[in-house]
Amino acid sequence: MTGKLWVIGLGPGNAGQLTPEASDALRAADIVFGYGPYLDRVPERAGQQRRGSDNRQEIDRAAQALAAAAQGANVAVVSGGDPGVFAMAAAVCEALESGPVAWRELDLTILPGVTGMLAVAARVGAPLGHDFCAMSLSDNLKPWPLVERRLRAAAGAGFVIAVYNPISRARPWQLDKAFEILREHLPAATPVVFGRAVGRADERVHVTELSAAEGSEADMATCVIIGSAETRAVERPHKSALIYTPRSNSVPSA
Amino acid sequence: MTGKLWVIGLGPGNAGQLTPEASDALRAADIVFGYGPYLDRVPERAGQQRRGSDNRQEIDRAAQALAAAAQGANVAVVSGGDPGVFAMAAAVCEALESGPVAWRELDLTILPGVTGMLAVAARVGAPLGHDFCAMSLSDNLKPWPLVERRLRAAAGAGFVIAVYNPISRARPWQLDKAFEILREHLPAATPVVFGRAVGRADERVHVTELSAAEGSEADMATCVIIGSAETRAVERPHKSALIYTPRSNSVPSA
Repeated sequence: MTGKLWVIGLGPGNAGQLTPEASDALRAADIVFGYGPYLDRVPERAGQQRRGSDNRQEIDRAAQALAAAAQGANVAVVSGGDPGVFAMAAAVCEALESGPVAWRELDLTILPGVTGMLAVAARVGAPLGHDFCAMSLSDNLKPWPLVERRLRAAAGAGFVIAVYNPISRARPWQLDKAFEILREHLPAATPVVFGRAVGRADERVHVTELSAAEGSEADMATCVIIGSAETRAVERPHKSALIYTPRSNSVPSA
Repeated sequence: MTGKLWVIGLGPGNAGQLTPEASDALRAADIVFGYGPYLDRVPERAGQQRRGSDNRQEIDRAAQALAAAAQGANVAVVSGGDPGVFAMAAAVCEALESGPVAWRELDLTILPGVTGMLAVAARVGAPLGHDFCAMSLSDNLKPWPLVERRLRAAAGAGFVIAVYNPISRARPWQLDKAFEILREHLPAATPVVFGRAVGRADERVHVTELSAAEGSEADMATCVIIGSAETRAVERPHKSALIYTPRSNSVPSA
C-alpha cells in the first residue's frame, strides 16, 4: 500500500489567490514539504507535520517527499505560484525518474496555481496580452550564453519576456546584462514592469522604460516583465499608467 | 460617481480552480459580461444581469462593460483561464485607450486566474518546467509569416511552446503547418501534449511525438504544448507517461 503525493501551487501569496482544490489538498496532507517561507503560508492543522528546507534543495526535498509517500503517507510538496513554472513539479519528476522503480506507481497529482507573472501582469494591465515567453535568468542550471541566446531570440521575434529568478546575491550582474542585450533589440521606451511579492503585505510594483531599467530594482521575489515593441502605456489621471500589449501584432522591431 | 470594473479569470473550468477573490468579485457584480460558455460557469445570483456575446466580439464587449461601469454599475467581464493571456484584459485596455477620457478614471481591477497551459501541464507532469513561450496560432490578429517566425525563433532557441487558439473552422491548416515547421527544428520524438477542456467533464488529454502529431487532434478548446529537445517522457506502469522538462538545460538543438 502506498500513499499519495500532491505537488501544490500556492499562488503568488495572497490567500484570495489560493485555489479551493489546493486548499483541500493542503488540509488532507499528513506531511507538507517546502521551502520555509512557502510553508509559512500553509494554514496550520493539528497533527500535520511540516518539513522545511532551503530553496536550493529542490531535488532532495522531492526525493524525501516521494519516499514518504511510498511509505504510505499523504504528502504535499508546496511551491509558490504554479508548481510547474520554475518550481517543484519538474524537480519531483526528475527525482521520480532517477529513483526506485516503485516510485513510478505512486498516486501523483499536480495542482496548478496562479504563477507570478500572471499576478504581476494583472496589477498593471495586460502586458502579456499577446505572444510572450517566460525565462529563468539563473545560470546555475544553464550556461549564461544560452540565456543570452534566448533573450535575443525572444526579443528579436517580438515576444514579451517575463523573467523569473532575475537576481540573487550569488548572481548580481545578470539582470543588468539582460537589459543591456534587450536595449539592442527593443525601443528605449519599451515598458519594463518590476513586480515584487504581488498580493502580499510587502508588495512593490514599479514600471519604468527599458532605457532606465536597473537590475537593482529587483530582488529574488521579483518577476520582471519586459514589453515588446508593441507594448503600450496608457496614462490615467490620479492612477498609475495601464501597461498592455495589443491583441493585434504587426512585425517585430529587430 | 462611477462604478467598478473587474476583469476576472475563471480558470480552466473546474470550480476547484476558481480563486476565492474571483468568486467574491463575481458575487459583488451587478452585471456580468462574457462569451456565453464562460457566463454559464458563473454561479447564479438573484438580481445579477448577464450579457453574453460571441467570442469574436471582444472589443465591443469591453466597450459595453466600460460604459456600464462609467454609468455607476459594478461590472464584471469574465474570461476562461487568465484574463491577461489571449483574453479580455488586453481588449479592455484597448477599448479604454480609444474610448472617452472619463473611462481612464474608472476603478479597474484585473483578477488573475490559472491559465490553460498551466492546467494542461499539471495533468501530464511538468513540460513547462524550464524556459517556455505562449503563442496564439491565430492569424486573424497578426500576419501568418510572423507566426512562422516566432515558431522558428522559439524552437531554435530551445523554448518549450504552448499554443493557444490552435485551430478553428476558419483556420483549419495552421496547426499542421506549425508542426511541419517545428519538425525542422526539433527531434522526431519531442513530446507533444494536446490538452482539451482540462478539469471539465469533457476533458481529453493526449500525448504523442512530434513526428506523429496531427492538427486534427485539436479543437478550439485545446491547448497544445510542444516540448523542447530536452523534454522527456518517463514511462510508468498502469499510468500515462510523465512528461517534463528538466530544470537544467544545456543547448538548443537548432
